[in-house]
Amino acid sequence: MDTVKIGDRLYEGKAKILYATQDPDLYVMKFKDSATAFDGKKKGIIEDKGACNARISAKLFEVLADEGVANHYVKLLSPTDMLVRRLTIIPIEVVVRNIAAGSISKRLGLEEGTPLKVPVVELYLKSDALGDPLINEYHVRALNLATDEEVGVLTNMALRSNEILSGFFADKRLILVDFKLEFGKRPDGSVILGDEISPDTCRLWDRDSKEKLDKDRFRRDLGSVEEAYREVLSRVIGEVD
Amino acid sequence: MDTVKIGDRLYEGKAKILYATQDPDLYVMKFKDSATAFDGKKKGIIEDKGACNARISAKLFEVLADEGVANHYVKLLSPTDMLVRRLTIIPIEVVVRNIAAGSISKRLGLEEGTPLKVPVVELYLKSDALGDPLINEYHVRALNLATDEEVGVLTNMALRSNEILSGFFADKRLILVDFKLEFGKRPDGSVILGDEISPDTCRLWDRDSKEKLDKDRFRRDLGSVEEAYREVLSRVIGEVD
Repeated sequence: MDTVKIGDRLYEGKAKILYATQDPDLYVMKFKDSATAFDGKKKGIIEDKGACNARISAKLFEVLADEGVANHYVKLLSPTDMLVRRLTIIPIEVVVRNIAAGSISKRLGLEEGTPLKVPVVELYLKSDALGDPLINEYHVRALNLATDEEVGVLTNMALRSNEILSGFFADKRLILVDFKLEFGKRPDGSVILGDEISPDTCRLWDRDSKEKLDKDRFRRDLGSVEEAYREVLSRVIGEVD
Repeated sequence: MDTVKIGDRLYEGKAKILYATQDPDLYVMKFKDSATAFDGKKKGIIEDKGACNARISAKLFEVLADEGVANHYVKLLSPTDMLVRRLTIIPIEVVVRNIAAGSISKRLGLEEGTPLKVPVVELYLKSDALGDPLINEYHVRALNLATDEEVGVLTNMALRSNEILSGFFADKRLILVDFKLEFGKRPDGSVILGDEISPDTCRLWDRDSKEKLDKDRFRRDLGSVEEAYREVLSRVIGEVD
């Protein structure tokens, strides 16, 4: 492909900006250093987060593609700019959990760190205004968010991604506690993985110390936030490339 | 059966008391006039509620049994005392919704009264301490609440009950907006319907005026609470018997 020309800003979210390119099928996703938590109530900057998350996501998307999980990643254009395929995002956040932490601990009264007997898949309506409420497949139908077939596909892709990523992280002495995925539709109607996979969207604990190496350090004011993101990058990239 | 002898009080809930009988397979469920809302934060007495709900439930359990939905109802022993089969309650509340009202309106931003394209089934963990959180089938597995087969059975029974009850109420000029069911297991492992079906557990609107004829009158201080319960009883019993 020729040099990518970054065009109009299509969308700016809390952690990323999406730009058009000269190719209508390709977008550029710029990863920002800004961080938010608790539905935007807490804000901050995590130095080099954009570059860490772009590079971690790039690597994880490559790993998933190698294992057959189709996703929007094309290549990195710069440390923070990722060339991605155009998607129509399905407005559902898909969370997979292996160990109880965060909201599930509070909602179901499970002590943080409790292993779940089976991986738990949760669907959330992507809506800042409503605080991303938990939904089920009946809500998906009633709200016309996706077809039953699409829900089946994205659930299976999420569970397969969990197997692949849990194994990948285990090799890096990291426990994949839980993570959030977003999916979108390609012009041909196929469902593929989009968004990012990073310490912003995964809970990652050090295998031995159980230290948190993810956005919970920011959410919970645990300190050493930048160091955690860099540590994950170093393990994800350093020991593989 | 001989005269039922009411034995030990086994359980007292917010709206009912469960007693043993001389037959280990039979319990007596006494319907109380006391009412609570918002996880017990609001309390009150609704005069004759116990008798209304016992008689309404009895009728609806008969209607469901006639249509093949097995349930715990045996007979009424008095206006407030229902003889029921013994169940091991599955700790899941099953809600079926036809029209958006109450919590789903708030959670999903749907104006109260919005018809849902398909009946929506929701599972809630039966836990006062946790405020009965919404769960899905993965949570059911992780928490060992029921088998996949049991969840399939109770979901189908809930949807079938919705068809039957919606039609029954329509004949009484009532709209079944939503309702909550509880299920339990019989000694042979079969899943049958338990608990009650009444204006405490159903949202019922007058077909023509859209007036609320259910516990929302108590929850929202709409007045004429007793009259609403009696009106439902009169329509459910009066025009059928």
